[in-house]
Amino acid sequence: AVELDATLHASSKGGYKHYMLKEIYEQPAAVQRTLNGRISDGRVAVDAFGPQAAELLAKARHIQILACGTSYHAGYVAKYWFEAIAGVSCHVEVASEFRYRTTVLPADTLIVTISQSGETADTLAALREVKARALGALCICNVPTSTLVRESDLAFITHAGPEIGVASTKAFTTQLVALMLLVLATGRRQGTLSAERERDIVQQLGTLPALLDGVLALDKDIERIAEEFGEKHHTLFLGRGAQYPVAMEGALKLKEISYIHAEAYPAGELKHGPLALVDNDMPVVAVAPKNDLIDKLKSNLQEVRARAGVLYVFADHAADVRPEAGIKVFPMPSVADEVAPIVYTVPLQLLSYHVAVIKGTDVDQPRNLAKSVTVE
Amino acid sequence: AVELDATLHASSKGGYKHYMLKEIYEQPAAVQRTLNGRISDGRVAVDAFGPQAAELLAKARHIQILACGTSYHAGYVAKYWFEAIAGVSCHVEVASEFRYRTTVLPADTLIVTISQSGETADTLAALREVKARALGALCICNVPTSTLVRESDLAFITHAGPEIGVASTKAFTTQLVALMLLVLATGRRQGTLSAERERDIVQQLGTLPALLDGVLALDKDIERIAEEFGEKHHTLFLGRGAQYPVAMEGALKLKEISYIHAEAYPAGELKHGPLALVDNDMPVVAVAPKNDLIDKLKSNLQEVRARAGVLYVFADHAADVRPEAGIKVFPMPSVADEVAPIVYTVPLQLLSYHVAVIKGTDVDQPRNLAKSVTVE
Repeated sequence: AVELDATLHASSKGGYKHYMLKEIYEQPAAVQRTLNGRISDGRVAVDAFGPQAAELLAKARHIQILACGTSYHAGYVAKYWFEAIAGVSCHVEVASEFRYRTTVLPADTLIVTISQSGETADTLAALREVKARALGALCICNVPTSTLVRESDLAFITHAGPEIGVASTKAFTTQLVALMLLVLATGRRQGTLSAERERDIVQQLGTLPALLDGVLALDKDIERIAEEFGEKHHTLFLGRGAQYPVAMEGALKLKEISYIHAEAYPAGELKHGPLALVDNDMPVVAVAPKNDLIDKLKSNLQEVRARAGVLYVFADHAADVRPEAGIKVFPMPSVADEVAPIVYTVPLQLLSYHVAVIKGTDVDQPRNLAKSVTVE
Repeated sequence: AVELDATLHASSKGGYKHYMLKEIYEQPAAVQRTLNGRISDGRVAVDAFGPQAAELLAKARHIQILACGTSYHAGYVAKYWFEAIAGVSCHVEVASEFRYRTTVLPADTLIVTISQSGETADTLAALREVKARALGALCICNVPTSTLVRESDLAFITHAGPEIGVASTKAFTTQLVALMLLVLATGRRQGTLSAERERDIVQQLGTLPALLDGVLALDKDIERIAEEFGEKHHTLFLGRGAQYPVAMEGALKLKEISYIHAEAYPAGELKHGPLALVDNDMPVVAVAPKNDLIDKLKSNLQEVRARAGVLYVFADHAADVRPEAGIKVFPMPSVADEVAPIVYTVPLQLLSYHVAVIKGTDVDQPRNLAKSVTVE
């Protein structure tokens, strides 16, 4: 029923100027749909991943994530989560690279593929290449009838609803929710995650729809600031830890629809090269929630400022990043570390959207790109 | 004696306009020094890595490489080599990310750190954080008296000689040689590499000095083409497989000394976003040796060409990339797959160097950067 509703409403832009904006605004509801029926008595319902899930997740000694583009960034966030929350080693690789090289898998590796459409050619090919050597294959996908779902042992459908805009938005955030559920289910089956912590994170996931609504209220502020990007040719996105892939996804969005050359760096690598690029013509966007790394990140931002780079910082109150000349701060809600990557993704989507509108690009169908990359 | 010679000659530019150019030209000799004494009867001398090497390399079930900047790119090449040649699973991570997250190591993991100076703060801190959980720690370093060498169980000194230019050149190519020797030693100790293949690759390493001399002869052609980059703000670097990190290193060089925003992509990811950036104002540099992936890469290059992107392709004769309007081809020597990343690095160094000279930057001391990043 949920899927039917989503289909019915997807055929029009519902009053929004572009599908992409509509899909950005659908995220609180989409995330709620991803959660619906996957939580039982305050804990994750392990069988939401399929009848074999309990067994495979208990046995997995290593997780190998394979994906392309935006889905790869979702997997990159999950790598941080798998090791920190479930205590299972995890690696993530671009499917087009993995499929063509000679790879060695640790024993009892569970393959996790991620694809909105479930028809991404390289992801399917990588799965086919590796499957016989793996413990099993699980996919996170938005299309239940897809080839990827059919060819995987376990499947988790994100229920984001149809995504029409070529630049992925709600597919990405719902993939992150799905991956967190998978991390929790894995930690539970491995006995590495306490019931208390599991309940706590499940509770945080439950607050996401309201949190995302709160972040969407930043829309007008972000729209105003987008003007400043309209004339720029470059942008650097910085993050650390699980926010680094969020920065990667923010940079990809700006590339895809605004044709601005944006690139993400883990902030600790700044001094190893990219700092040479920074001058007053290079805006730097940072995702800076209060966490263990905030002081390190702030010191990185000072380096940027010292080189006259103009900073746009998304930070919560506790991060205590002060606005001043050359530093714009967007006030983010206070949010637990574990779900922060999902929350901080949304303002970066809005930024790219508004910059694209200002630049007059074809937001929903950016040049040179297709929605699903079904050929190599 | 070798080291003493290198020190004596390093204090002057020896007729070169910049230290960087001198160091680029020193690579045939530097690579030879890295090989000297490390080969025995046509095979790698395992004890070149230290007395414990034979035991640790036989036991290692997994390799975790940790490094920053250029050294990280060397490690990224080695990841392809370790799995394809030694049959041992390998991952590589930026040290500043690894040290601050909760990581899970597979059993019997050998840590491999890479640093020119051996004083890179994040690499040292990552080593200290992980060492007690690992099977052992090996470093590849250019400075025998460094902290990194002192704190590692095994050390391999590259003997590149002092590197004065901030943008690393000969340190990188000698790190690659060292890493290939390590891959061979590992494969030999694990029994996964035949003596015949080991001898073959050792023989290929021996041809590197002459091959690099041949590539340096492209200097004038590259200098001529560099003019075309002087006015550009962006460049995309493309590679696939073990040439992807070569593209990453090429992009980093251009960033560091030419202040051109260059970014590398594994060519298979083009369709997942960066293709939107491609127009006639975005030069695209590709490393395209004849190998199993050449047809895929050529199809990627056609996509770039179809969007009016101007291509600069480094390819050998067998790759059969034809020059035409919008496609410049630089003829590379024929070289075996295994050592190709080392050979294809050099023209990208020359390209960055000449573009920087045309732009009038301070080549040896680019703005905002230090030679060794000894603080976070």
